[in-house]
Amino acid sequence: MRILIIGATGTIGSAVRSELALRHEIISAGRNGADISVDITSPESITTMYQAVGKVDAVISTTGSAYFGSLLELTPENNEIAIQSKLKGQVNLVLLGLNHVNDRGSFTLTTGIIMDDPILGGVSSAMAGGAIRGFVQSAAIEMPRGIRINNVSPNVVVESMEKYGPYFPGFEPVSASRVAQAFRKSVEGAQTGQTYTVY
Amino acid sequence: MRILIIGATGTIGSAVRSELALRHEIISAGRNGADISVDITSPESITTMYQAVGKVDAVISTTGSAYFGSLLELTPENNEIAIQSKLKGQVNLVLLGLNHVNDRGSFTLTTGIIMDDPILGGVSSAMAGGAIRGFVQSAAIEMPRGIRINNVSPNVVVESMEKYGPYFPGFEPVSASRVAQAFRKSVEGAQTGQTYTVY
Repeated sequence: MRILIIGATGTIGSAVRSELALRHEIISAGRNGADISVDITSPESITTMYQAVGKVDAVISTTGSAYFGSLLELTPENNEIAIQSKLKGQVNLVLLGLNHVNDRGSFTLTTGIIMDDPILGGVSSAMAGGAIRGFVQSAAIEMPRGIRINNVSPNVVVESMEKYGPYFPGFEPVSASRVAQAFRKSVEGAQTGQTYTVY
Repeated sequence: MRILIIGATGTIGSAVRSELALRHEIISAGRNGADISVDITSPESITTMYQAVGKVDAVISTTGSAYFGSLLELTPENNEIAIQSKLKGQVNLVLLGLNHVNDRGSFTLTTGIIMDDPILGGVSSAMAGGAIRGFVQSAAIEMPRGIRINNVSPNVVVESMEKYGPYFPGFEPVSASRVAQAFRKSVEGAQTGQTYTVY
């Protein structure tokens, strides 16, 4: 397959890329260090990316920012980071990418454990994750040409524990390579509308 | 209790108002026909509303618009209706209202069955509902001063079947008065972080 990965230079994205590159052609997109530059907060940038890439069999998003901080410091303004990036960015990758995905292709988006198992400071990200899960489950029943859509909800990953561990007390981290398997299941499998939790 | 209901003139809002007015002081807010005018898509309008209302014991939102239509016709632009209204509108009622709610008060937002049980044309609304559920569950663990937050996820209501019935084939409609009981449970009960499904 020909697979476009947005966010392929991140911790999870790199693991997904390594796993899928064994059997597929990978095109990476991201803000920097990727084959193609894209800013998912801009619909124009997404459209330009798809025009440059041409047809693909699978689109994978392992990207999406969010403000992390106390609910008391969450404002309509800093909540926009998650709205523009993790939420609308990923949704727009689907809405603007439908015509660029081959028949029976797939989209796989990223959510995260904190939409199921909240942590302090994670409200905005949990909101965006919940939105993506709702979008995926609902969009799945309307996808044209046998195109599928799923999302992967990873736990905090071992490789990020030094940076994020303090925010996830008592969580049992999973390896990025294990998360990558869930993306493989989404891309190479046949299910749709699923949330693959890697907890 | 002193209870602010945003969307009190809608089908569900009217039922919630009737139920709660038996025991509480109700202030209604909405785009029209309410005690106080508010446009929840505008943070400034929300702030002005709270300043006019003063302190309350409970804030209930039974409002929020979304584009209904085929996934193939869903665009970044018309998806904004749900983002601005049902999603950010309800989230901002909480973020901007925290200082206007008394100790041990509550927020109750509205989601909807299609985030769990998708219908054709409901992608944008399901996305917003999922976001609100994620926000509520996560915000609950950080609420100050014993303030609680829940959401009610209603099925299609009997009173709206003439208008919306064709979009909900095989769904078993519930009465608006039954949905109102879930709002009562949220306001008069002691739970937090819950999604009260009325399916």
